[in-house]
Amino acid sequence: MIARYLPILDWGRSYNKQALSNDLVAAVIVTIMLIPQSLAYALLAGLPPEMGLYASIVPIILYAVFGTSRALAVGPVAVVSLMTAAAVGEIAQAGTAGYAIAALTLAGLSGLFLLALGVFRLGFLANFLSHPVIAGFITASGVIIAASQLKHILGVSAGGHNLLELLESLWTHLPETNPYTLVIGVVATGFLFWVRKGLKPLLRKMGMGPKLADVAAKAGPVAAVVITTVAVWLFGLGDRGVAIVGEVPQSLPPLTMPSMDWNLVRQLIVPSILISIIGFVESISVAQTLAAKKRQRISPDQELIGLGAANLGAAFTGGFPVTGGFSRSVVNYDAGAETPAAGAYTAVGLGIAALALTPLIFFLPKATLAATIIVAVLSLVDFSILKKTWAYSKADFSAVAATILLTLAMGVEVGVSAGVLLSVALFLYKTSRPHIAEVGLMQDGSEHFRNINRYKVLTHPDVVTLRVDESLYFANARFLEDYILDRVLGSEGIKHVVLMFSAVNEVDMSALESLEAINHRLDSMGITLNLSEVKGPVMDRLKRAHFLEELTGKVYLSQYAAMTELGPVGPAARTAA
Amino acid sequence: MIARYLPILDWGRSYNKQALSNDLVAAVIVTIMLIPQSLAYALLAGLPPEMGLYASIVPIILYAVFGTSRALAVGPVAVVSLMTAAAVGEIAQAGTAGYAIAALTLAGLSGLFLLALGVFRLGFLANFLSHPVIAGFITASGVIIAASQLKHILGVSAGGHNLLELLESLWTHLPETNPYTLVIGVVATGFLFWVRKGLKPLLRKMGMGPKLADVAAKAGPVAAVVITTVAVWLFGLGDRGVAIVGEVPQSLPPLTMPSMDWNLVRQLIVPSILISIIGFVESISVAQTLAAKKRQRISPDQELIGLGAANLGAAFTGGFPVTGGFSRSVVNYDAGAETPAAGAYTAVGLGIAALALTPLIFFLPKATLAATIIVAVLSLVDFSILKKTWAYSKADFSAVAATILLTLAMGVEVGVSAGVLLSVALFLYKTSRPHIAEVGLMQDGSEHFRNINRYKVLTHPDVVTLRVDESLYFANARFLEDYILDRVLGSEGIKHVVLMFSAVNEVDMSALESLEAINHRLDSMGITLNLSEVKGPVMDRLKRAHFLEELTGKVYLSQYAAMTELGPVGPAARTAA
Repeated sequence: MIARYLPILDWGRSYNKQALSNDLVAAVIVTIMLIPQSLAYALLAGLPPEMGLYASIVPIILYAVFGTSRALAVGPVAVVSLMTAAAVGEIAQAGTAGYAIAALTLAGLSGLFLLALGVFRLGFLANFLSHPVIAGFITASGVIIAASQLKHILGVSAGGHNLLELLESLWTHLPETNPYTLVIGVVATGFLFWVRKGLKPLLRKMGMGPKLADVAAKAGPVAAVVITTVAVWLFGLGDRGVAIVGEVPQSLPPLTMPSMDWNLVRQLIVPSILISIIGFVESISVAQTLAAKKRQRISPDQELIGLGAANLGAAFTGGFPVTGGFSRSVVNYDAGAETPAAGAYTAVGLGIAALALTPLIFFLPKATLAATIIVAVLSLVDFSILKKTWAYSKADFSAVAATILLTLAMGVEVGVSAGVLLSVALFLYKTSRPHIAEVGLMQDGSEHFRNINRYKVLTHPDVVTLRVDESLYFANARFLEDYILDRVLGSEGIKHVVLMFSAVNEVDMSALESLEAINHRLDSMGITLNLSEVKGPVMDRLKRAHFLEELTGKVYLSQYAAMTELGPVGPAARTAA
Repeated sequence: MIARYLPILDWGRSYNKQALSNDLVAAVIVTIMLIPQSLAYALLAGLPPEMGLYASIVPIILYAVFGTSRALAVGPVAVVSLMTAAAVGEIAQAGTAGYAIAALTLAGLSGLFLLALGVFRLGFLANFLSHPVIAGFITASGVIIAASQLKHILGVSAGGHNLLELLESLWTHLPETNPYTLVIGVVATGFLFWVRKGLKPLLRKMGMGPKLADVAAKAGPVAAVVITTVAVWLFGLGDRGVAIVGEVPQSLPPLTMPSMDWNLVRQLIVPSILISIIGFVESISVAQTLAAKKRQRISPDQELIGLGAANLGAAFTGGFPVTGGFSRSVVNYDAGAETPAAGAYTAVGLGIAALALTPLIFFLPKATLAATIIVAVLSLVDFSILKKTWAYSKADFSAVAATILLTLAMGVEVGVSAGVLLSVALFLYKTSRPHIAEVGLMQDGSEHFRNINRYKVLTHPDVVTLRVDESLYFANARFLEDYILDRVLGSEGIKHVVLMFSAVNEVDMSALESLEAINHRLDSMGITLNLSEVKGPVMDRLKRAHFLEELTGKVYLSQYAAMTELGPVGPAARTAA
């Protein structure tokens, strides 16, 4: 029982030297990668850089204790940091103490919400974010994040909650561009793009082993940080208007308290729910992808508890909302991390960095951090989902398109909410007007029935068989009534109507009443109503009502049995004749 | 084209003497019944009595021109009047000019909304009100309406927006009860109940014809009105504290203007939408019931236009929100109304009443009107829906119970909204965790496949066949992935998985990606994935993606064909052996 909530008891028992050494190697690589990333995401969230480091320390350890994924690396990620900036920016001015406290509180609320979902096993709620909506949301967020960092590349102050506001504000401040900052920003961005695409092949060509080349490429951002920091220091660019990180306290994560002020909490509830769900969805898809590769299983409800604990940890140790990140987890996995202990070692590494290395980044230009963010998020931007969904399903396309447009035009919260609501509405709309096919017996000698408009099938003039392609419930009950009545009034000589229920997975009370009405009306025209291929669960339910007693026809186990009795066609008819 | 929007052109052409005489008879009967009812519903809505008459005149004529039902009688009805009182009571004090203007405006907004739904053919939206939710809502409304009228029976002033507030307020004011009013109220209520149950059988026993007895029974409220009015006049009870209707202007419906004040409009938008939808649902079910009896058809979208026109008419002629009423329509139908012209003649009758008869009701006690309302609405109260849904489906039961409780406890708007949202949420929840049955071949010599847990069926050890009992979409895509993986990991030696798609009516983009993942994972375990009985529309869509090319197995037309090839059992295996 306890083991259910503490997966660490499971893998901890079989921990050995081999696993330890693998985990340590992975931890070193991930630590190097995480230092600039953590600083950058704090910048993106509008918070002091050290909070990015703090948010990566205790949360990682808590996730290692409570989470089920062996390779997931928890910490600040781009989309969640953007959502944090959007939510907290509504409440306080970036750079103030109130802003930082609101971010802590947001992490605390998010942690509580995730824990509650996990304990009450409500993880399935996240499934209502469809894949296309997520893809669209991440793409649009990537664009906004990249745009929001342009101000650091230009060295101007600009802001806005959506793409238009951002671009307009950038345009207004363009004349104030700082040339030194611009050079640093553009060079760093170009360098990082090149590291991403060109460095690894180059190192390989120079005879470096594939693993080492990979690590070196991942260290690209560190190189950018070191070079630009040294450049700023050497040439005294800080005095020429290049924005630098400045003094960062040398400290392990401090003990902090999220606010209990009801007014603040009330304003943060909705954003915290959205952040939790988006974070959970991002995290679980990464975790499932990595687990599948090693045939491990992860438990969604336990993941909620792991992420909830991590966020609560962030709230009490100077962090902000965190989740399992894609790039850091993949690096962790590729570097050979075997157990969540790798995460704990990474935390130690980051702790050392927070204690010892912070004076070294005094001259680190913000433009470099912005460059690492831009390069990281542009890999998330992928508009091909629009083309893919357009080809496959217009409903999915509408949901993606709405998500992307509204995220860009009105911000992340409106965008993702609209995407979810629209997907659900389109699903409901589709189920409210079900596809109904008239079917007949296939002529291939089988007992199979198919749509008369798609196949050459056998039918009998006395019998109309309709295959209802949807569960019957309140939203389509009246549609079915109208459809059957129209069909029957449209032709002469029908004696039997058979409803083939192979695709009917549910008949609710409203639909039951509609079936009663249909039975009644057909009866008054001298036509019997029959059912075929009714499934177990549906039949169980129908037996609890009076409908089956009043039914003028019969319930047949198979459609073939129904036709054999009501209007023989095909082999059966031939045998009879 | 014009005829589509003007059904009058259809029935008007064939109008003849016989229809005229039938319509006239019906109109006389309905007029007699409507006079006290209209006054009473105005009282219920908190409006001056003449507005009840006005709301029954022009709207009836407009519906006759635009509506499709031959027998529907449009005017104020109990539930809509209650909703009007609830909505307008939030904004203005009953009895003030602002209150009346808000009611006109509400009718106008409701008319516009209904027209818009009709023109854009959105009538299907009303289907999202499930039958149980409607039944629960009407029952709870009936209780609230009856309770709200008790103050008139007691002769005290009391109020409240929900049952508890109403009863508490009544209890506080109980000591102020006016004995004369109480006597009138109780006697009138008793008399009306007796008329409803006992008068018709008595008259029949006394030898009166069935039709005449029916008309006499319907005239009961008129008798109560006449008798109590005369009593108040004779004994001067108006001076002894019995609340009377007082002076009512002698006038045809006046020309009025709904308010264009944006502040007022904004407050009334949500209530007007709820009133429109509830009114439409009530009206269309009455219309469909009556139409079915004569094998006539009504068009839901045109009904919206008819009701929209009627409500706009009410807004401009001193009325308040109206809809097709159950009792008045049934009376109209039973009295032999053949065409909507009967409604127009009723309007003329009511016009004469408004012009000539209003001085006669000066002494009419409000207690009598309250008695007619109580007797009318208690026939709507029917808690048996709770028992019926409990036996049939717990989901339906929850929706009804929530609707009833919340309507009683928090008022009509909250109640009905919660009912709709809960029904939709429960439906989504059910579809998010689909029933999946493992199936095998029936041993009756047929080619039919059924659940292995319900029937003795034949299976082959190499093959797992899962019948997925739900359309596959974002909310259940991951569930399917987990389910199949669990099933396959749970047993040895499986070579083929067949997904029987007979109940899958849709595969959206998210589900497609899940199917791709399943295909991939099974492949890595050396298991093929096959589909059977994929329907036309689903197959069309799958062909637009790469999935079918990557599928490790095949798509079989029927499950029998799949088993014949992958793992023969039953007759096929016997033949082969």
